[in-house]
Amino acid sequence: MPTLPAARLEEVTRNIFTAHGLPSEDAAHVATLLLRANLRGHDSHGVIRIPQYVDALQKGYARPRPHIRVESETPTTARLDGDLGFGQVVGCRGTELAIAKARAHGISAVTFVRTNHLGRLADYAEMAAAAGLIGLLWANAPTALNVAPWGGAARRLGTNPHAVAIPGPDGTVALSLDFATSVIPEGKMRVRFNRGETVPPGIMLDGAGRPSTDPRQYYTTPPGSLLPAGQHKGYGLALAIEILGGILSGTGAARAEQGPVHNGTLVVCLDVERFLPLEDLHRQVADLFGWVRSAPLAEGATEILIPGEPEARTARERLATGIPVEDETWRQIQACAAAVGVPA
Amino acid sequence: MPTLPAARLEEVTRNIFTAHGLPSEDAAHVATLLLRANLRGHDSHGVIRIPQYVDALQKGYARPRPHIRVESETPTTARLDGDLGFGQVVGCRGTELAIAKARAHGISAVTFVRTNHLGRLADYAEMAAAAGLIGLLWANAPTALNVAPWGGAARRLGTNPHAVAIPGPDGTVALSLDFATSVIPEGKMRVRFNRGETVPPGIMLDGAGRPSTDPRQYYTTPPGSLLPAGQHKGYGLALAIEILGGILSGTGAARAEQGPVHNGTLVVCLDVERFLPLEDLHRQVADLFGWVRSAPLAEGATEILIPGEPEARTARERLATGIPVEDETWRQIQACAAAVGVPA
Repeated sequence: MPTLPAARLEEVTRNIFTAHGLPSEDAAHVATLLLRANLRGHDSHGVIRIPQYVDALQKGYARPRPHIRVESETPTTARLDGDLGFGQVVGCRGTELAIAKARAHGISAVTFVRTNHLGRLADYAEMAAAAGLIGLLWANAPTALNVAPWGGAARRLGTNPHAVAIPGPDGTVALSLDFATSVIPEGKMRVRFNRGETVPPGIMLDGAGRPSTDPRQYYTTPPGSLLPAGQHKGYGLALAIEILGGILSGTGAARAEQGPVHNGTLVVCLDVERFLPLEDLHRQVADLFGWVRSAPLAEGATEILIPGEPEARTARERLATGIPVEDETWRQIQACAAAVGVPA
Repeated sequence: MPTLPAARLEEVTRNIFTAHGLPSEDAAHVATLLLRANLRGHDSHGVIRIPQYVDALQKGYARPRPHIRVESETPTTARLDGDLGFGQVVGCRGTELAIAKARAHGISAVTFVRTNHLGRLADYAEMAAAAGLIGLLWANAPTALNVAPWGGAARRLGTNPHAVAIPGPDGTVALSLDFATSVIPEGKMRVRFNRGETVPPGIMLDGAGRPSTDPRQYYTTPPGSLLPAGQHKGYGLALAIEILGGILSGTGAARAEQGPVHNGTLVVCLDVERFLPLEDLHRQVADLFGWVRSAPLAEGATEILIPGEPEARTARERLATGIPVEDETWRQIQACAAAVGVPA
């Protein structure tokens, strides 16, 4: 498995998407966010997606130069139509709009429709936090269903993530939470499947609705399903996210129909300073983190972490030592590059 | 264990609080919400709280006639100071304000500080939903710590609930989700303790940070702690709620200091009609629920439910047959009533 410098991978990624017709700044932005996912240790949302995105471009599911437009708007709200643009491009445009509205009016809500895979919701929540706002996102994926409703035995919901980011001092991010409402995301199941490994109990059902630890029972007919995180709690939140992200945006909720994967998304930005000075928030957040970390460790635990901290740590390591890319993934990326005459 | 008609219990509750100096409409409102919790099967948030509330009034922790005031306000946001009023009274006042602001401006955020126990967050989220808005709430309780951070072995966080409600047709509520970010709320642990029962694995740690199923290890020295729901996911959300509910409201986040229990709360209301007509939302939500329910049942499951449905069902039953009240709880309520000359 090669370990590649982030800068080299980012350049290859940028060049591939530029060759497919994306404006250079959009290609650079997509490359930055894919590499950021790898740097932070979330390889399922990193360069492994390049072949999928290229395929979407070739099939016309994704457009390299979308005409992103505001479908409807009020001073605090907007519906954004991504015109099948890359999620990274539409997501940033929409989050910038939400940030501007929240700065002007205290709170805002913006939805995105007809938008390809967004990548990690954390990226957009962190944009808001870096701007001194609280960012909240919810996203569904109505044609990428993996999760059984609580009590059910078939895939009916997406892994519907929810993200929250809290501003830190000087444009930093104090807390960045981004979690699938299933016990694990589908990508981690696929990794176990590819490696011929089992998964711990409590993660999946087989196609007959029985508890299973065998990923082969997930990728078969009838297919298995992922269980919701926290049992009925993750199920309830996933169902709410079908409405918040899917229905409000015009993307629609989970359904039987097949089609290209779009993320229906809601972003809410909240201006902290309508409630208290940012400096007070920073001080209280630091005190809270100190209090939480003051707990003795549970049996088997090595430390108490703040959401976003493992990612920051991995990013420091991988910036220094490079990003490990599985052989098959690197082969596919090289093929994508060769097909458009990009050196890799 | 007596089974008492809801109307009788509500009258006794109302009379007790009127005798303690609450304005009659406030006493009626507190009684309605406590009984609503019992009707919906959440006895931990029902009339069992009467002695606790009376104690808070007697100690001056709760004020019968608070001067609730808006500390600061913009067209979309407000900080409400509950002046130690009953949570039910402050919560409704604050949610009404959030509803009015969201109707006028599309989205709103209102916090409550110096507010006694709110009861069920679902009640306030459902107020928004009944008004055709989406209601979202987050609440902490910085002096009622029960939950260990993920990896930790001592209580550092509240059970920090989160609620979401979605409007249904004709002033109904289509979905009402209200969950503690711990695996179970503390009240359910106490019920098991009182009955001498164990709890399933995965719910608690003992005072040394070891997994335990013995509630006696929870109520000892050093005390045990509740585990977060969905492991690190519930922990991350609970930590965010310390900030959203606690710090933004001025209540403060979880800390070592002891004191009367206040709920620091954030309510966000979102006007669906800035995004799509309510009728379209209702139709799509109905389709989503139909799709989710169309799944075959998992092994051991008897049905697939929508959040809020079990509560609605229990309410129908208990309105017809009465509310079972444990002997000790009923004895305490009768004592509260007798102390102020109220028949019970």
